[in-house]
Parts: sequence; C-alpha cells; structure tokens
Amino acid sequence: MNNVRNRIMARLLVICVSAAFFSVTVQAADLSSGTGACALPSWNDGPAKRSITDFIAKVTKDGGPDFVTPSERIAVFDNDGTLWAEQPMYFQFLFVLDRIKELAPRHPEWKTQEPFASLLRGDVKSALAGGERALGQLVMATHAGMTSEEFEKTVTDWIATAKHPKTGRLYTEMVYQPMIELLSCLRANGFKTFIVSGGGIEFMRPWSERVYGIPPEQVVGSSIKTKFELRDGRPVLVRLPEINFVDDGPGKPVGIQTHIGRRPIAAFGNSDGDLQMLQWTAAGTGARLCLYVHHTDTVREWAYDRGSAVGRLDKGLDEARVRGWVVVDMKADWRRIFPLVKE
Amino acid sequence: MNNVRNRIMARLLVICVSAAFFSVTVQAADLSSGTGACALPSWNDGPAKRSITDFIAKVTKDGGPDFVTPSERIAVFDNDGTLWAEQPMYFQFLFVLDRIKELAPRHPEWKTQEPFASLLRGDVKSALAGGERALGQLVMATHAGMTSEEFEKTVTDWIATAKHPKTGRLYTEMVYQPMIELLSCLRANGFKTFIVSGGGIEFMRPWSERVYGIPPEQVVGSSIKTKFELRDGRPVLVRLPEINFVDDGPGKPVGIQTHIGRRPIAAFGNSDGDLQMLQWTAAGTGARLCLYVHHTDTVREWAYDRGSAVGRLDKGLDEARVRGWVVVDMKADWRRIFPLVKE
Repeated sequence: MNNVRNRIMARLLVICVSAAFFSVTVQAADLSSGTGACALPSWNDGPAKRSITDFIAKVTKDGGPDFVTPSERIAVFDNDGTLWAEQPMYFQFLFVLDRIKELAPRHPEWKTQEPFASLLRGDVKSALAGGERALGQLVMATHAGMTSEEFEKTVTDWIATAKHPKTGRLYTEMVYQPMIELLSCLRANGFKTFIVSGGGIEFMRPWSERVYGIPPEQVVGSSIKTKFELRDGRPVLVRLPEINFVDDGPGKPVGIQTHIGRRPIAAFGNSDGDLQMLQWTAAGTGARLCLYVHHTDTVREWAYDRGSAVGRLDKGLDEARVRGWVVVDMKADWRRIFPLVKE
Repeated sequence: MNNVRNRIMARLLVICVSAAFFSVTVQAADLSSGTGACALPSWNDGPAKRSITDFIAKVTKDGGPDFVTPSERIAVFDNDGTLWAEQPMYFQFLFVLDRIKELAPRHPEWKTQEPFASLLRGDVKSALAGGERALGQLVMATHAGMTSEEFEKTVTDWIATAKHPKTGRLYTEMVYQPMIELLSCLRANGFKTFIVSGGGIEFMRPWSERVYGIPPEQVVGSSIKTKFELRDGRPVLVRLPEINFVDDGPGKPVGIQTHIGRRPIAAFGNSDGDLQMLQWTAAGTGARLCLYVHHTDTVREWAYDRGSAVGRLDKGLDEARVRGWVVVDMKADWRRIFPLVKE
C-alpha cells in the first residue's frame, strides 16, 4: 500500500513543478465537413487514420479472419492527455486548488496551517514543499469526508463553471475533437468504450456520459475507500481519507481486469502511465490496435514527451516504435484539436 | 481489513456446519407456454409477478410520472440463492473441495498437513476445525498463485463438467428459470442487468454471459488482489493470496458505487447479505423495485430462512415486510424452479 500511495503522490507532485503556463490558441474548425459516424472529419488522411479505419474494418468484417464478436470489442482510453488536455497541470489538481479556496472560509485554521496557508496565498510551490504528505492533505481535504452524493454534486458544479487558466474554456471544452469522433466511430461499430484513467473515478463519472458518451459504469479510475453507513436510517456512502486503488501504470491492467474482466482489443494512451495497458492489450491473440497520442503541437495545444513532468512519454515512445504501435502526431494528424464552441 | 477478512471467512465457514443434504426433485415444466420476452411464463399470477410487471410498465412509460431514462435503468442481482441455488453449500465452496482433490497429487505434503489432510480423507468438519485460518488456506490454495487466465480456464473446465451432489445437474442447470426470464424481460425493456454477489468475481465471469446473458463487465463480486508482471516479456496478472474486496452486506453498496457508479432502481436478493443493497436501492428518488426471493419449497428446491447457515434471511425478511418490498414465495409464485434440461 505504501508503494501505491507513493506512486499516486508522486504522480500528483510532479505536476506542480511544471510552473510555465503555455499559450494556446483554440482553433474552431468547420464541423460541417464529413459528419458520418465514422468519417473522422478532424483526422487528416495519413498512416494514423488509416491504421484506425483498417483495424475497425477488419475486426467487424463478418466471416473475415480477424472478425471479433461484438461482445469482445472492448476499447480502453486513458483520459488526461488522451481524451482531454492535461497542461499546465492535471485538471483534477486545478479542481483541488479551486476547492481549497472555496472551502477556506469554513476552515479558519488553514490560514496558519500548511500546506493550506501557502496555497491560499497563491504560493503553490511552498505549499508543496512538504512533499507527499502536503499533497495528500490537499487531496484528502477536497476528496474525502463527504458522502458520494455530495462529492458528485461538487464536481458537477465545478465542471459546469470552472475555466481553464490559459484558454478560458470550460474544461469539458478542452476535450480532443478527433478522439470524440473516434469514440463515436468505435461505438457505431459495436465497440464498448471505457475510460481507464489514473484520475479519480468519481471525478470523471459526473460528466463522462454527457461529454464522451461513456456512462459511469464504463469509467475505471483511481479511488479512495468508501464506507456504507445508515444516518438516521438513511443509507449513505462516506468517502474516507484512505487510498483504495491507483489506476496508473501497472495498475491499469489490474483495473481493467477488475472492472471489465476481459482483455481489450484496442487501447489508447499518451504517456508512460499507459504503457502496461497497451502491453496488456497487445498481448492478446487476434487483431489489436494500440495507439499513443503524441503531443507535438506548440501552437494549437502543447508539445511535450520525454522531459515532461506531466504526461511523460519516454519508454512508451520507444516501445511503440519497436512494436509498431500507432503514434499520432497531433500537429500533423489532427485537423482540429478542440471542439467548436458555440458562442 | 481484519474485519473484512473475518466476514468473508465467517461467510464461508457457516456453510460447512450445514451437514444435511436436502433432497430435490427437478421439475421439467413446459417451456412452450408464453415465450414472449416479458411473458414471464415460469411465474404464477399473483402479487409478486404483478409488482414486477407494474414496475416495468411505469418506469418505461414515456411521459409518465415514473418514467426512467434507459441509461438509469440499472438492475442488480445477487447470485447465490437469487439466480442459482446455494444448498447444501455455496457452489463456490464445492469448487474449492473439488480443486483440493484435483491438486492433491501435486502437493504430497497435503497428506499430513491440515486442513488438507482431513479434507482429502473426506472429513470436511475436521478440516474446518481450524476455523478461519484453515478455510483461508483452502480458499487461497485454490484461488491464488496462478495467472488470471489460468484461473479462468480452471473455472471454465469445472463449470462445464462438475455435477451437483444431490441433483446430479450441472451447476449452471441449477439456475432459477423465473429469474432468467426476469433478466431477459428487464433487458428487453432497456435495463442493464448486473450481478452483485458475495461470490468471487472471477469465479462467475467465465460463464455469466452464456448462462445469464450478463457480460463480465457487469459482474461485481468479491476479489483477491492481483499484480501485473512481465514474464519473459509477456504480461500476466498474478492472483495473490490476499483479500482485495468483500462484496457482501455493507460491501454491496460500495461494490455498486465502485463498479457501476450510479444507484440501481431495482435490486434482487435472498438473504441478509443483500439487505444493504436493497436499502441503498430503495433510498433513491423515483420508482423502485426491491425484491427478496424467499426459499419456501421443500419439494422442488429447499426451504430455509431465519435459521439457515447458508443464505440466512432474518433481518431482511422483517425489513421487507415493514417497507413493503416484494417477497417471492418460491413455492407459490414459481411455476417452475430450474430450467428444462435437454437430455
């Protein structure tokens, strides 16, 4: 458990050393061209798009050598950096920061108590000088101690209003349009699509169906423990300040087995935290699609890989090349990054 | 964790004090009458059947006051004693006994080592004299130490051939025909059906889709921990001799939240181990169906409730009456118990 705890803490910690906020230009591309379920209009023609369409064609070709029965068409998607952006910090950490500010009036003691005091002065770096322990306090102060319903409402309210610090967009407007199209295309071809993310499972579920078309029961993520209680005869699930499961790295195949119980035939990620998920997917028999989104676009999004604190892609990039996995070059392969936002 | 461990051990232990094997007569009723998706031909007309059909009618009536959108039509089913029989012992424990015998040649030390020695002499009672520790050894010797794929194959082979000690039927032929019809009926009405069982999640998944029409990703159950490893470059999930989650009693709402992430609108159980699941389901807003299967048929199945070591129904029966939950009288309400088996 300590190892697991260390990993989640380390994951959250690294995001905070990334101080520079990159600039971003939102491109509102034309939605009208090619709106068929599988037209993938935001994908430029090229090897990445072709690998996807070829794979779908062969596993759905009834009677063909690579045909996969619909119930086995399981596709798993990482979230941060794969379905939505993750710079300059994981969005869930920006939620933590917002919540600490929001909750501060109810916690006068935070004015003098670290890591809260520094954070409330806007000094993230000092707040996190306390390392894992400090980060754990921030996470648990904002994620534990309430019922599951209360937490769901908090996330729902936040996601409906909070804006990204650089783009000024809602976070749900910073999803990747090409991936939204890919999700639809897979479902139109009989796939069941799942999120398998290092992010908090209950942080994603309140909006995953509306934004991605992925219902709560198809979201796999990290979690804290919960406890069933009767409060004045009314049953509640109370969120406890204790890590239950870390769905990252080698935890992803474990999370897949726990929640899905069969091996995916397609897996999509963007970082080394997705490597074991792609390995697990690739190791099954029959046709497989393993794909890395490579962040290469400094103008429309961000460019980062081996040296990044958030979403590091290093070992995974090497393995993708050795194994012939698809590597999406965001700059070249994606006609549009973010969805068109209605004004 | 000790508490959790104690509970699963206690659950497994009680099944062994039930020494008497009841006699059972399999009734092969006529399948030809009423085969519509929702005809429920194995249900006799009466208040139980009417409660079910009324509930389905009102939540699916578009524009009606109780209409529930399809994505929210979540129905959860206990397995042991609700979807299949559980006497004279939970079938998973009969699997344990069979496996110990099967594995014995590879473990010569078991000849003199308890609890294995007694068990191999056919003396279950002495084998379990060592209480929880002994039971834990038996369970872990048969459920841990192999990969997830190896365990799946073992279960698949066993369930295809092993026979119930009294009826001589395959275990999958000891499912309840009225509940199979109910599962189909719910799905035909846009429900997503889940198993939420105290039994092992990986013990149910290899056959749940074929037998119940419930795919692996809709099975929630108890589990041991697993670990991702690369063995000669090949990824495997190794099953560890450590309890991960006990999906029983207050664990059931926790399991539901973890795996499904929304509250069911219908819940079906047969024992006090299902009480919190029914409470959790009942506490939501809008129309709800909470149903207990009451084992009342000494001729065609078994009759047991408050005093039973397996599937005790005591507090649940009281609460069902106070709250007006449906209580199925198996003897009166079910025209047929087990499915017709082709000779």
